[in-house]
Amino acid sequence: MTATRENKKTSFEQIMSERALYIDHLLRDYFASLSFAEGAGSAQLKKSMEYSLFGQGKRFRPTLCLMMAEALGHDVDTILPFACAVEMIHTYSLIHDDLPCMDNDDYRRGEPTNHKVFGDSTALLSGDALLTEAFSVLARPHSLPATQALALIQVLSQAAGALGMIGGQALDMNAKKTAQDVDQLTTMQAMKTGALIRVCCEGVTMAFQRSEKEIELARRFGEDLGLAFQLADDLLDSKDEKIEAGSFPALIGLEATKEFLKKVSARAQTSLFSLGIKVGSLHDLVNYNLNRTI
Amino acid sequence: MTATRENKKTSFEQIMSERALYIDHLLRDYFASLSFAEGAGSAQLKKSMEYSLFGQGKRFRPTLCLMMAEALGHDVDTILPFACAVEMIHTYSLIHDDLPCMDNDDYRRGEPTNHKVFGDSTALLSGDALLTEAFSVLARPHSLPATQALALIQVLSQAAGALGMIGGQALDMNAKKTAQDVDQLTTMQAMKTGALIRVCCEGVTMAFQRSEKEIELARRFGEDLGLAFQLADDLLDSKDEKIEAGSFPALIGLEATKEFLKKVSARAQTSLFSLGIKVGSLHDLVNYNLNRTI
Repeated sequence: MTATRENKKTSFEQIMSERALYIDHLLRDYFASLSFAEGAGSAQLKKSMEYSLFGQGKRFRPTLCLMMAEALGHDVDTILPFACAVEMIHTYSLIHDDLPCMDNDDYRRGEPTNHKVFGDSTALLSGDALLTEAFSVLARPHSLPATQALALIQVLSQAAGALGMIGGQALDMNAKKTAQDVDQLTTMQAMKTGALIRVCCEGVTMAFQRSEKEIELARRFGEDLGLAFQLADDLLDSKDEKIEAGSFPALIGLEATKEFLKKVSARAQTSLFSLGIKVGSLHDLVNYNLNRTI
Repeated sequence: MTATRENKKTSFEQIMSERALYIDHLLRDYFASLSFAEGAGSAQLKKSMEYSLFGQGKRFRPTLCLMMAEALGHDVDTILPFACAVEMIHTYSLIHDDLPCMDNDDYRRGEPTNHKVFGDSTALLSGDALLTEAFSVLARPHSLPATQALALIQVLSQAAGALGMIGGQALDMNAKKTAQDVDQLTTMQAMKTGALIRVCCEGVTMAFQRSEKEIELARRFGEDLGLAFQLADDLLDSKDEKIEAGSFPALIGLEATKEFLKKVSARAQTSLFSLGIKVGSLHDLVNYNLNRTI
């Protein structure tokens, strides 16, 4: 059993890193195609954007987009502009999150944060530029019909905006000042980190014009996957009897958080079954997340 | 003569303020339709976005969009989502520009800046949210066909991004450290403030599928109009023998700047004539800008 699981894990991780490499390659191609203006300020902006976009990111979100397209039997290349746009939005959110007026972090993934290398003003601008560029990528002529590209811009901008990710950050900032219950925590996480994961799954089904029912199932799978990753992160951060304030373990306890994670993971897999996805990398992904807490 | 000009000015200013009121009304309607999450953090974010969006703005850019549509004989309502999107992007750029890590301004249009009222982190997030919402407005179902809506998102994201407005800000930040010549200043201004004005004119012709030649003429008109406003601002800022460093008067002198403004204004009007726009509010706008320097 252990050997099989080890092999499976390795094969899954290989799939993850192959997809990540592909996304990396595409993002580099895209960046090489942009005509930045001449001048030191412009060169600095470009370097700052590249520093974070080509850092140590796991490319989790774009890989999820590719896995979803593959699992549903669609052409992976069609979804690439969307996958790249999601990654650009994720990257910008990290740059702005790290700024002194937000979390004031000096390091991310073991490297100095963007503003530590390029200064606060360039980091602010390069975050703004990556967010803007995300929509430019999706609006460029590509293999998606205009109606679908527009629908993806709509759903992505809503997931990333005041009613999604940014709204979640605003809730989180306030939650640090006041106590919140488990429902409030769930809502905040669903917006702050969940929305961008959910939209990867939802977006793929929209791009390929799947039925309303399938889009809804993909949305639910994405929501549960996002929550499952948050629960696992909370459990990993709460090892050694140190339970982080405001986390799920702090509010409902370690055991209940573990049970919640199992329940949410099972629900995610049920959605996959209903989508006709019986086996494969998306199931492996759910199990990978579950196993990392053991 | 004086009486006629006074009447004309008054009538033009009335057109401007009527259009501004209409845009204001629409933006308020749009904001009322958004389902912000419950919670103090979310309410704070919404207040911060509204504070800047419904401040003392002149609505110059969206009004320009409406004037352009009217002058070309098109339905004004069709271009409204685009006009609102441009205003949201302009507003976000002011919020981020005022932040301590950028210009560190305490007041804008006589009112405390966003971060002075809501704090740096909320101001950062509300800028991010307005930028994101701009693309959401354009991607929503509305009277523009999907192909045109997508083309507007493309041209707007390019004008606002690393190759446009943000790129210009990056050049400007660096220019404060080193000397620049008049060509570099013109490029920087064309990106930093010009691109968003230019895209209003260009966008309207694209929305209504005018010919490539007409789109190019509208683009040129917008570029010249943006430059003319910058030149007039520089002249107004350089009154009383105090010439601001790095401005056009500082680089080429007051008289040459006045001549440049006249030349660019005449060129803008020539583009209007070529577009078949012989009289009306766009000509009045060019003259209004010219007259405010006298």
